[in-house]
Amino acid sequence: MKIVLDAMGGDHAPVVTVEGAVETVNEVDDIEIILVGAEDLIWKEIENKRYPAQRISVVHASQTVSMNDEVSFAIRRKKDSSIHKGIELVRNGKADAFVSAGHSGVVMATALLRLGKISGVSRPAIAATMPTLKGKFILIDAGANVDSEPENLFQFALMGNAYAKTIYGIKDPRIALLSIGEEDTKGNELTKETFKLLSKTDLNFVGNIEGKDIFKGNVDVVVCDGFIGNVVLKVSEGLAETILRMLKKEIADIITGRVAYMLIKPAIKNFKKKTDYSEYGGAPLMGINGTCIISHGRSTSKAIRNALKLANKFSKEGFKDTITQELLKYQKQIVESPQEPAIQGVI
Amino acid sequence: MKIVLDAMGGDHAPVVTVEGAVETVNEVDDIEIILVGAEDLIWKEIENKRYPAQRISVVHASQTVSMNDEVSFAIRRKKDSSIHKGIELVRNGKADAFVSAGHSGVVMATALLRLGKISGVSRPAIAATMPTLKGKFILIDAGANVDSEPENLFQFALMGNAYAKTIYGIKDPRIALLSIGEEDTKGNELTKETFKLLSKTDLNFVGNIEGKDIFKGNVDVVVCDGFIGNVVLKVSEGLAETILRMLKKEIADIITGRVAYMLIKPAIKNFKKKTDYSEYGGAPLMGINGTCIISHGRSTSKAIRNALKLANKFSKEGFKDTITQELLKYQKQIVESPQEPAIQGVI
Repeated sequence: MKIVLDAMGGDHAPVVTVEGAVETVNEVDDIEIILVGAEDLIWKEIENKRYPAQRISVVHASQTVSMNDEVSFAIRRKKDSSIHKGIELVRNGKADAFVSAGHSGVVMATALLRLGKISGVSRPAIAATMPTLKGKFILIDAGANVDSEPENLFQFALMGNAYAKTIYGIKDPRIALLSIGEEDTKGNELTKETFKLLSKTDLNFVGNIEGKDIFKGNVDVVVCDGFIGNVVLKVSEGLAETILRMLKKEIADIITGRVAYMLIKPAIKNFKKKTDYSEYGGAPLMGINGTCIISHGRSTSKAIRNALKLANKFSKEGFKDTITQELLKYQKQIVESPQEPAIQGVI
Repeated sequence: MKIVLDAMGGDHAPVVTVEGAVETVNEVDDIEIILVGAEDLIWKEIENKRYPAQRISVVHASQTVSMNDEVSFAIRRKKDSSIHKGIELVRNGKADAFVSAGHSGVVMATALLRLGKISGVSRPAIAATMPTLKGKFILIDAGANVDSEPENLFQFALMGNAYAKTIYGIKDPRIALLSIGEEDTKGNELTKETFKLLSKTDLNFVGNIEGKDIFKGNVDVVVCDGFIGNVVLKVSEGLAETILRMLKKEIADIITGRVAYMLIKPAIKNFKKKTDYSEYGGAPLMGINGTCIISHGRSTSKAIRNALKLANKFSKEGFKDTITQELLKYQKQIVESPQEPAIQGVI
């Protein structure tokens, strides 16, 4: 597969993006990478590295989107940015997927504008993977949309289900709806209506889940509006950092602190490895007519490597077709459900 | 002050509730406690304890609200519950405040029905206190309302401000709006409209805050809808538990694990103490015509003790009057703001 990498995206670009690309082609046989960005900077990074030369190419982009750019400004005024040019390569069939650790708002908007949505999808969604006590779960939507409607959340569930099945190989993914109580009567208008829709299908819908239970590892997909999902993602990130900092300080404050910290250092390292976002590489933008992976701004070369591999997997699995089939199948179940009429706006 | 304690509320009632009451009157001079609940059970717990007898009294309630009861069922069918009878004592002026670690939905609904709202408050809100790297912040609303309007969030900010000033003694509390980006254009319809309202007042409004920053200790009050607030509260609770469990497991897995754990145990104990919800006692239900503190279902006697002290402080500070004054003052600022007309519904 041919994957386009936004060489200029992320806090440590183009150093870590080029490193990630080189590591990937050295490790995986069936990936070709197109690096898009300021070619002089890219060549400077790449020239002394060893890799199969025919599997990395460079496409010049004269502009770079900064993290401070307004989305509308970048879309209108930066048509020669690495994000815009990279997505155009996918649109023109010259590449199979796009990966960027750059400005996620601009990536989303450009992908939506230039690639469009899969037929039948009302809104795209970001599917972030988060660690649990036993493994991981997919949080969808992690921030593509705010003010979602029940039909949107229903479709997020279908896309999360397809992701868990196809990419993570989970046979019958357990889908849960993030709410503030387990009963179907608990929640807000949005979750109550979504609950009804999900109950009408033969998806493995396990009902509402509360925030305190998402990390227990008993569900595979957690569905919510993008405002909530983004808050959950960032609260978790902030809290995990805070807890580790507080613990470190408390350990430093005890008499045996220095020895104790030396002793538990490997354990903290293992913990960090297990909960490291870079293991998952990035979050696919689901529902878009093409594969698009959004990585963390702080991405390391390892995160870039894993994002490229994820993009490769998504492209190989013909993910778009899977989603289209699932949309048709499950939306038919809602419409044909005898219990009550489908809500307005579904299909 | 006279505080009513729901002796039957919480996972370990009436053992810990009675313990908490006894500890409180032994420690604080100016509190009288009325224990409401099954009097035989209460007397059994209390009879062998030493305390100034004239400062604890018992009022019998023949019913107990179970955690599985539907709110509407409890309201209609359990008029002789400890929650209902306790709140009636406040309503009739026989007590100054009510504390319960029982069914929070039933406490909220009963308080709203029987005590009513402070004049001018459109919806009550739960104000939970959470720990940060440097201290603590107030999260409001932590779960009383879903589907809030901008005018509700605006009032939550005023109530949080009054709480931080009056009870925590913070001179000019820093108020932030929970959103998914720092700029005023980031967020959903609700936060964008609320941002405008808060900007019109001379509150110390510091703008939007992202989830990753709430634990840094740079703001005193975080304002959000109750669905979001409840998710944040429970995600934090679940994640903190998960991280400690994972770390413990990782430490157990290293060769020097047993020694290391012994060494860092005091540090973990200190960390747990600093982040222990029971330090804060409970979350006041703000905007109600009377003091009402909701404690965690898992409350220990220490949590009950701190909740009783918090109720005492709220009653002494004449909190209702403070809120009423603030509502009038800041709502006037919105209406008189020359920039644009006030939104509908804000007086």
